Amino acid sequence: MIGKIKRPTLFVNKAQCLGNIRKMKMKAGLSHTHFRPHFKTHQSLQIAEWFREEGVQSITVSSVSMALQFANAGWKDITIAFPFNIRETEDINRLFPGITIGLLVESQETAGFLASHLKRKVRIFIEIDTGYHRTGISWDDHEGIREIIRICRQSEMVEFKGFLIHSGHTYHARSTKEIHDIFNDTSEKMLSLKQLFGNDLMISIGDTPSCSLRDSFPGIDEIRPGNFVYYDLMQYYLGACSMDEIAVSVACPVVAKYPSRKEVVIYGGAVHLSKEGLRLPDGRVIYGKVLETNPMNMPEAENAGYLNSLSQEHGIISVCREFIDKVTIGDIVHIIPVHSCLTADLLKENTLITI
Amino acid sequence: MIGKIKRPTLFVNKAQCLGNIRKMKMKAGLSHTHFRPHFKTHQSLQIAEWFREEGVQSITVSSVSMALQFANAGWKDITIAFPFNIRETEDINRLFPGITIGLLVESQETAGFLASHLKRKVRIFIEIDTGYHRTGISWDDHEGIREIIRICRQSEMVEFKGFLIHSGHTYHARSTKEIHDIFNDTSEKMLSLKQLFGNDLMISIGDTPSCSLRDSFPGIDEIRPGNFVYYDLMQYYLGACSMDEIAVSVACPVVAKYPSRKEVVIYGGAVHLSKEGLRLPDGRVIYGKVLETNPMNMPEAENAGYLNSLSQEHGIISVCREFIDKVTIGDIVHIIPVHSCLTADLLKENTLITI
Repeated sequence: MIGKIKRPTLFVNKAQCLGNIRKMKMKAGLSHTHFRPHFKTHQSLQIAEWFREEGVQSITVSSVSMALQFANAGWKDITIAFPFNIRETEDINRLFPGITIGLLVESQETAGFLASHLKRKVRIFIEIDTGYHRTGISWDDHEGIREIIRICRQSEMVEFKGFLIHSGHTYHARSTKEIHDIFNDTSEKMLSLKQLFGNDLMISIGDTPSCSLRDSFPGIDEIRPGNFVYYDLMQYYLGACSMDEIAVSVACPVVAKYPSRKEVVIYGGAVHLSKEGLRLPDGRVIYGKVLETNPMNMPEAENAGYLNSLSQEHGIISVCREFIDKVTIGDIVHIIPVHSCLTADLLKENTLITI
Repeated sequence: MIGKIKRPTLFVNKAQCLGNIRKMKMKAGLSHTHFRPHFKTHQSLQIAEWFREEGVQSITVSSVSMALQFANAGWKDITIAFPFNIRETEDINRLFPGITIGLLVESQETAGFLASHLKRKVRIFIEIDTGYHRTGISWDDHEGIREIIRICRQSEMVEFKGFLIHSGHTYHARSTKEIHDIFNDTSEKMLSLKQLFGNDLMISIGDTPSCSLRDSFPGIDEIRPGNFVYYDLMQYYLGACSMDEIAVSVACPVVAKYPSRKEVVIYGGAVHLSKEGLRLPDGRVIYGKVLETNPMNMPEAENAGYLNSLSQEHGIISVCREFIDKVTIGDIVHIIPVHSCLTADLLKENTLITI
């Protein structure tokens, strides 16, 4: 297989993905929490089928375009977990016949626009902010929330479903304890909304760090993690996964080596891996890590090295002496990406499934 | 036009691109320097035609795949300015009939592999390093250079052409003087190779900062800038272009606004703009700048703001009071990208040419 690799290629380890999917689905099941995985990580119809085979029927996506891609592949229940972009209202009206669509609103303006322009039924969730401060209405803005619910309920096209949150601040946590603390804080605030606005409403949470670290999700009606199917270096350093659970790497041809600089240059740059950096505990910012195990004739090395620099097509890895002695121009080096969602997006057309 | 924008879209200002192309071509002409623009920035067959209409016939690309794209569109003279990836040798042998192909080598290994596996004629340049330390053989490793030339000249398939460099360290310069200094240092070192190895050999240089700031290129046989067709925030802060010369912006729908945080959230994230950050003089790292002029009904604002944070699909811009008072959910905000090459790569299928 390696012999045929010419260009940077995303290797997806199917067995590990299946393990990650089953583990998360089982945890959700034990908590009687609905599992609506986010498909923005893989964006792949083939990988989507692995979820279907595990019994998943409802999914999350992050754009109307992505919803359309999966709707066309037969997915019938899709939540678009992004503050609804009112410029795509006509697409919602026209392009999803027979599909259950969930949308997010977090302002009276968007709720009002939808209420007056929708020509089909949709589910609506209010996006809540409990501290991440990206999007969402603040969990304690009860008046604001009440008004959005009122607007939603005035429209015959809207089925108001409940409250949704992405606690993305877990990605900035410095310990697994902090991730647990954020989960507990978020849960408490979200459950208070249910008490206030109706026990029949849903609470949907999303981030992979919380969902990975928690054993159960008491009181939470739905989880929507996405990244866990692949995991990546960021999740590893957050403590959300082990190295073995990371199911992807990018196979990159070696094009140059510099023994005196202890550096190797690979064909694999920002247009393949993305410029997402990760600050290591020692302060360095890196863009990937050389895979240390030896899946397919790769030179073996302990602590082989990190991807330290990325241009459009070049990557520079700093490596140990043992590695540089073994590696040859034309070899394939496997890089674990920092953020697999962005890497998978870039390598959509250069992906190889391995067993 | 703005009325039809639904999703993050790269706006390309044709008049400004033509101005940038003509200016660079004229400068090269005045120096009797061959102009071989790098097409990795736009990767667009349409924009390539604007170059053709200005008399450009020979081009630079950064991958074999990109070479194939332009070869299939009728470009007959293509240099692949990337250390040759020997895993693509068969593609070079098979896929470019009738096309003049230039390749880069910088090691005896790659030169030797090519010499023994090429089945068609190619031009070869040796990539030289004068201080950037990404790829290339050190300019003062005369023995190493001599050996690569010897290997090249043993093969009937190789026409050895000369020395090529990308002085990417100009991108890290802290003043335009430093860029001039790097250019002068690079020129001197490159010209010394010509004296040593033959005056009939070519010297080809590449970086946009040098090519933009220099009025002439004495002794240099060829320039290969790419980014100048669009420019971007990075070039602006390097002093390589004015704000007016930046020919691209990304039109992004506003999906949420937070007057108390003075923040606006746009549909426009890392999968549209790329995660390339830029450190401002005040130390902040930003991912784009709100376009301050008003090309098409955009809320006007002085110092409107910066794109401070990017998720996969969301962008958070920090804005001034005047801007937040005017902007409405559903408006389009134009963002000047940090690195237009990466943004254009991501928005290949969502690009709109404006006059």
